[in-house]
Amino acid sequence: MNEPERAPAWHIAQWFNTPAPISLEAQRGKVVVACAFQMLCPGCVSHAIPQLKALHELFAPQGVCVVGLHTVFEHHEAVTASVLEAFLHEYGIRCPVGIDAPARDGRPIPQTMAAYRMQGTPTFLLIDRQGRLRRQVFGLVPELRFGAEVMQLLMEPASATRKGPMS
Amino acid sequence: MNEPERAPAWHIAQWFNTPAPISLEAQRGKVVVACAFQMLCPGCVSHAIPQLKALHELFAPQGVCVVGLHTVFEHHEAVTASVLEAFLHEYGIRCPVGIDAPARDGRPIPQTMAAYRMQGTPTFLLIDRQGRLRRQVFGLVPELRFGAEVMQLLMEPASATRKGPMS
Amino acid sequence: MNEPERAPAWHIAQWFNTPAPISLEAQRGKVVVACAFQMLCPGCVSHAIPQLKALHELFAPQGVCVVGLHTVFEHHEAVTASVLEAFLHEYGIRCPVGIDAPARDGRPIPQTMAAYRMQGTPTFLLIDRQGRLRRQVFGLVPELRFGAEVMQLLMEPASATRKGPMS
Amino acid sequence: MNEPERAPAWHIAQWFNTPAPISLEAQRGKVVVACAFQMLCPGCVSHAIPQLKALHELFAPQGVCVVGLHTVFEHHEAVTASVLEAFLHEYGIRCPVGIDAPARDGRPIPQTMAAYRMQGTPTFLLIDRQGRLRRQVFGLVPELRFGAEVMQLLMEPASATRKGPMS
Repeated sequence: MNEPERAPAWHIAQWFNTPAPISLEAQRGKVVVACAFQMLCPGCVSHAIPQLKALHELFAPQGVCVVGLHTVFEHHEAVTASVLEAFLHEYGIRCPVGIDAPARDGRPIPQTMAAYRMQGTPTFLLIDRQGRLRRQVFGLVPELRFGAEVMQLLMEPASATRKGPMS
Repeated sequence: MNEPERAPAWHIAQWFNTPAPISLEAQRGKVVVACAFQMLCPGCVSHAIPQLKALHELFAPQGVCVVGLHTVFEHHEAVTASVLEAFLHEYGIRCPVGIDAPARDGRPIPQTMAAYRMQGTPTFLLIDRQGRLRRQVFGLVPELRFGAEVMQLLMEPASATRKGPMS
Repeated sequence: MNEPERAPAWHIAQWFNTPAPISLEAQRGKVVVACAFQMLCPGCVSHAIPQLKALHELFAPQGVCVVGLHTVFEHHEAVTASVLEAFLHEYGIRCPVGIDAPARDGRPIPQTMAAYRMQGTPTFLLIDRQGRLRRQVFGLVPELRFGAEVMQLLMEPASATRKGPMS
Repeated sequence: MNEPERAPAWHIAQWFNTPAPISLEAQRGKVVVACAFQMLCPGCVSHAIPQLKALHELFAPQGVCVVGLHTVFEHHEAVTASVLEAFLHEYGIRCPVGIDAPARDGRPIPQTMAAYRMQGTPTFLLIDRQGRLRRQVFGLVPELRFGAEVMQLLMEPASATRKGPMS
């Protein structure tokens, strides 16, 4: 495998469930798990959202930064910040969720989604303590494997060059 | 069991997936199945919507009128007609769906929901060929039983006094 | 559709959960639902057995004869009557279950399975009040449809020539 | 948490899917995951067996010893080695499976099950590289957590005194 790349910065228009904006740069030293989703994407709602919630519940107490990124690329006018807020409330999503900033040139793909060249939603990102993008998955990661991968990053020292069995 | 009551009229602000409004009165002679739901109700999305779609697919070709009623009683400002339209598109809901008309007095419960004294969403309604409300269920009906109940109403003559084994 | 054929007689080596053997001939006038399964067939265990139990629970009180047929065509020596009995106990199967009689010529396919030319397990049989085989399905029937089909047969008069919407 | 105890030895009457018996002692230096199950236990079949298979598929290539233990405590005469062998074949279980040796005194609980004081089936065991029983769970472990726990043990050095975040 090639050397993993540095994870691109996030561009967020508005945050929910956090007292202050979350900059990816400021998470250096922490493992970061992000789930890019859309509230009107059926596969996100039925599978990725429950997984995001389970990841947050299990790993946030261990110091992992678990966030949702609302990467809207369809139905822009209909999917307002206020309906997203109601959605987060009704689905009991307690982790920080950021609205991916709309493209400056009016294109449908928002900025963070474009920076990571995501193919669609849901997309999961795993970022290690050194800020490197270790995994990007369009679709779902089987839970057994996902748990193993997060734990592997968690057990790597912050300045590690050593890589675990799944790297 | 007491004699079933006549099903109250529906009060609909806007219809989707139908060329003309659907009046319950005009369905006399037909079996009617309705699912009252909210697009931000997790149990509706995971269970009732798939059931509504399956009911429509199986029974509409047999002449049953299968409709959704969007009975919003929370987050009124956030849940606009335009986000519901996007939701219907993304979830592939092809049956007619009506937006239950907001209460005239500013209360949260919309008019049809109030007329049927629904306890919440999802609520399923089964109405026979004579316009009588034969079943109203808050929550889900097991599919085997639901299929049996709709078929029973379907096999009753339009002017029947005979009742089937499940009445 | 062609005129449905008379359902072939069953050949049963041993019955469980019934005080006396069940002859198909003696069920004339009743609707009969049978599920042919094997206790070591994963699809039977995960899907057909729960459906058999649900059918029994819903329709036996309405006079439908719901039975299981253990149509073993593999691992004959291993799958004894005594392990089947333990299986029925552990899975809480309360409806009558008959062991399909082994072929007389030593072939693997047991007699009833051969008479119906079943392709494998699970196979569901629906037999009407006149003893006619109205449906034979290898695999599963969606529950909504299954409920509707049983109810249709149930609402047909015993001597009916009238056929319902799904025939 | 107290110091974890040394995992008791296994007492196995017969092995499947392995060229030679597997002694727990000989696994020292390896992480060991075991699933105690019964082939007639519905919860084992529907949930624990799929998890055992997923654990084997994900972690065996990383050097984890993943095994099944058939801990029969009911229906002893019915559940023969030959019907278990047919079960393993039909369910596609490829990992080593050992039949827990029957109690010498004729009691229903087999020897390994008794040595670990298991409460029932399924029971999962996690044993670290030093042969210490780090976790014993009656029932199921959520997959995300299970993956994390196995990876944690996998990343601990064989002679580690360091413990990871979940110990």
